[in-house]
Amino acid sequence: MNFDALFQNQLDTLKEEGNYRYFAELERKCGKFPHAANHQEDGEVRDVTVWCSNDYLGMGQNPLVIDAMCEAVQRTGTGAGGTRNISGTNHDHLLLERELADLHNKEAALLFTSGYVSNWAALSTLGSRLKDCIILSDSGNHASMIEGIRHSRAQKVIWEHNNVADLEEKLQALPANAPKIIAFESVYSMDGDIAPIREIVEVAEKYGAMTYLDEVHAVGLYGPRGGGVAEQEGLMDRITLLEGTLGKAYGVVGGFITGSAALCDFIRSFASGFIFTTALPPAVAAAARASIRHLKESDTERTQHRAQVAKLRAGLDRAGIPHLMNKSHIIPVMIKDPVKTKMLADYLMDEWGIYVQPINYPTVPKGTERLRFTPSPLHSDADIDHLVAALSSLWKQCAIAHAVA
Amino acid sequence: MNFDALFQNQLDTLKEEGNYRYFAELERKCGKFPHAANHQEDGEVRDVTVWCSNDYLGMGQNPLVIDAMCEAVQRTGTGAGGTRNISGTNHDHLLLERELADLHNKEAALLFTSGYVSNWAALSTLGSRLKDCIILSDSGNHASMIEGIRHSRAQKVIWEHNNVADLEEKLQALPANAPKIIAFESVYSMDGDIAPIREIVEVAEKYGAMTYLDEVHAVGLYGPRGGGVAEQEGLMDRITLLEGTLGKAYGVVGGFITGSAALCDFIRSFASGFIFTTALPPAVAAAARASIRHLKESDTERTQHRAQVAKLRAGLDRAGIPHLMNKSHIIPVMIKDPVKTKMLADYLMDEWGIYVQPINYPTVPKGTERLRFTPSPLHSDADIDHLVAALSSLWKQCAIAHAVA
Repeated sequence: MNFDALFQNQLDTLKEEGNYRYFAELERKCGKFPHAANHQEDGEVRDVTVWCSNDYLGMGQNPLVIDAMCEAVQRTGTGAGGTRNISGTNHDHLLLERELADLHNKEAALLFTSGYVSNWAALSTLGSRLKDCIILSDSGNHASMIEGIRHSRAQKVIWEHNNVADLEEKLQALPANAPKIIAFESVYSMDGDIAPIREIVEVAEKYGAMTYLDEVHAVGLYGPRGGGVAEQEGLMDRITLLEGTLGKAYGVVGGFITGSAALCDFIRSFASGFIFTTALPPAVAAAARASIRHLKESDTERTQHRAQVAKLRAGLDRAGIPHLMNKSHIIPVMIKDPVKTKMLADYLMDEWGIYVQPINYPTVPKGTERLRFTPSPLHSDADIDHLVAALSSLWKQCAIAHAVA
Repeated sequence: MNFDALFQNQLDTLKEEGNYRYFAELERKCGKFPHAANHQEDGEVRDVTVWCSNDYLGMGQNPLVIDAMCEAVQRTGTGAGGTRNISGTNHDHLLLERELADLHNKEAALLFTSGYVSNWAALSTLGSRLKDCIILSDSGNHASMIEGIRHSRAQKVIWEHNNVADLEEKLQALPANAPKIIAFESVYSMDGDIAPIREIVEVAEKYGAMTYLDEVHAVGLYGPRGGGVAEQEGLMDRITLLEGTLGKAYGVVGGFITGSAALCDFIRSFASGFIFTTALPPAVAAAARASIRHLKESDTERTQHRAQVAKLRAGLDRAGIPHLMNKSHIIPVMIKDPVKTKMLADYLMDEWGIYVQPINYPTVPKGTERLRFTPSPLHSDADIDHLVAALSSLWKQCAIAHAVA
């Protein structure tokens, strides 16, 4: 059997559709973010401004975080040396878990190797081990939640994105005695819209359902201590499980859940994706903890972040460039065609030194391809002006302006 | 609904069975491995010798690896800043992937956040996207492979552990035209036995099946350049996909696959667990690369590792302590009861300062609980003598000697 031909055949289809992905090869330069070097296909290396990073606050180059990581590498070495159960639990992991529990005002927290794994492992464990469990999943949920629910083989009910009336209708129709989990996100990564958390919590309480809230695009960014949108809204204590990441606003890598001691101990004890994997390096835990502690105390980054987001929006508005309106920091410009999106991104890179990855299927549904801009507090006003000028030039040159209006 | 009561109920059952897990809280100390500090429940911190680490060669404290990680943290920051597709691919990732492809003499390699994720993502993608695919899985395979196969929903055929006759019988019974994947490991982590790779490759070729070989407990340790057991046996070129980890012998964290360019591009393009997750920090990639490069050139660590493994085995034999015989570096002492295993481990920790984690269900089947010793090149002869003395004393004191004979 010619396996390579089978693989190539499916890759060719992707290419024909315009959905084949070309990764930009960057060199992040500590202290220069959002500027980086880009290794191009012709071998040339050039400076670019990164406009699509999820290192939302530039914490990946914060000296406190850098120093914490290097100090811990020198102190503990480069790896954990085992799974959490078999010699891999280090003091730094437990300090981080305490920091995370405190962040969300919960009894406990549990660390995972990534946000993807935390969602996949927690939802697959809850869904498979709670007898007759039904998971009510927002239709816009992230792949990691979808795969976790699918893996659990629990009954799944999909409710219309951010539509609480639809959620309630679906809850009403379900057996009163079955354990129910409402799984949703606060900030949705690709549209940047925010869930009506309060209303969801209210119907959850009415029907005795557990709430599972993914705050990966919100922790560090929202709330007075960076606890996320639920903290900002004063709702953390009414959410059963808060899930987050250390790889976006906190600038490192890893994922976590927080909740009651019994909940975290349950996932710790039964989740395959937690048990059977090498723990994160203690140095990663130390770096993440430094980042979280800093963002609990400091509002400077969040204030400046909001300011730059507002400036980019205003600049786009002045230039007549349509973008999705939302209350978050994510600014999507819809193109709605994978080939055109890539063409625009290539042009921005080649002509303007602007790197924004074309977002295509399966990250977004086909026909909703886009450029997704994520301003950081470190994007200067000049960076913003440069981006707006580039897009204005594009919009003037191309017939595309009409297609995306 | 009282969810905490549901969780607590299942945790209580674990406790009653003796299967509840207590994690040892360590502080790794760079330069002191295998010695570490242990934070005990009473708050006391004491020095222990770690006898169950998967940092098999102590590379986690190798100065080359430490320096590579710190240099890259200072140069690139603490995180990748995005998924591989969206701003997260760094030059260090590509350098590492080239190093890995070279390690296994393959066209390409693909990096994952962990070995668990590499198995889960690769197998679930292959099984779900190759039409009518059938996966033949060794009955001893790791949880990450089992979950990946399960998630794929492909037809699964389990063959008897390391039994090639049984594998061939099962292959014969399957439709000739269906794509088949034979999934197995080289070194099995808990028994330490090694697969008959040559015989498996021969039947795979006879029936046109693809081979998927997990070398996580072998890369860095076996073969003249650390390419694993398949390298040692001169069989790498006959294996379709070699999977490995950066978190054990290489002393860092992360997982990978290697294979043809089409195979790696296929997984890169379709695997949810690869696409939708933040890339490993470039500094992790740089550290792993330094470790791999060192172990491609240096045989010192492997030679000393084999010597210390042989010394511990000889010591156990002289003391009459039964252990599983195998050709690997893993030395299991079977206890076959979870409560007794924990009791022995607690005694070794409390009385002798020896840390070996009791291995219980679900890591091993119920009734096969054990102590699993992993000597490293950095365990001194005195460390080995101390362990043998401790176990001898135990065996003399306890009636357990009879139970485990």
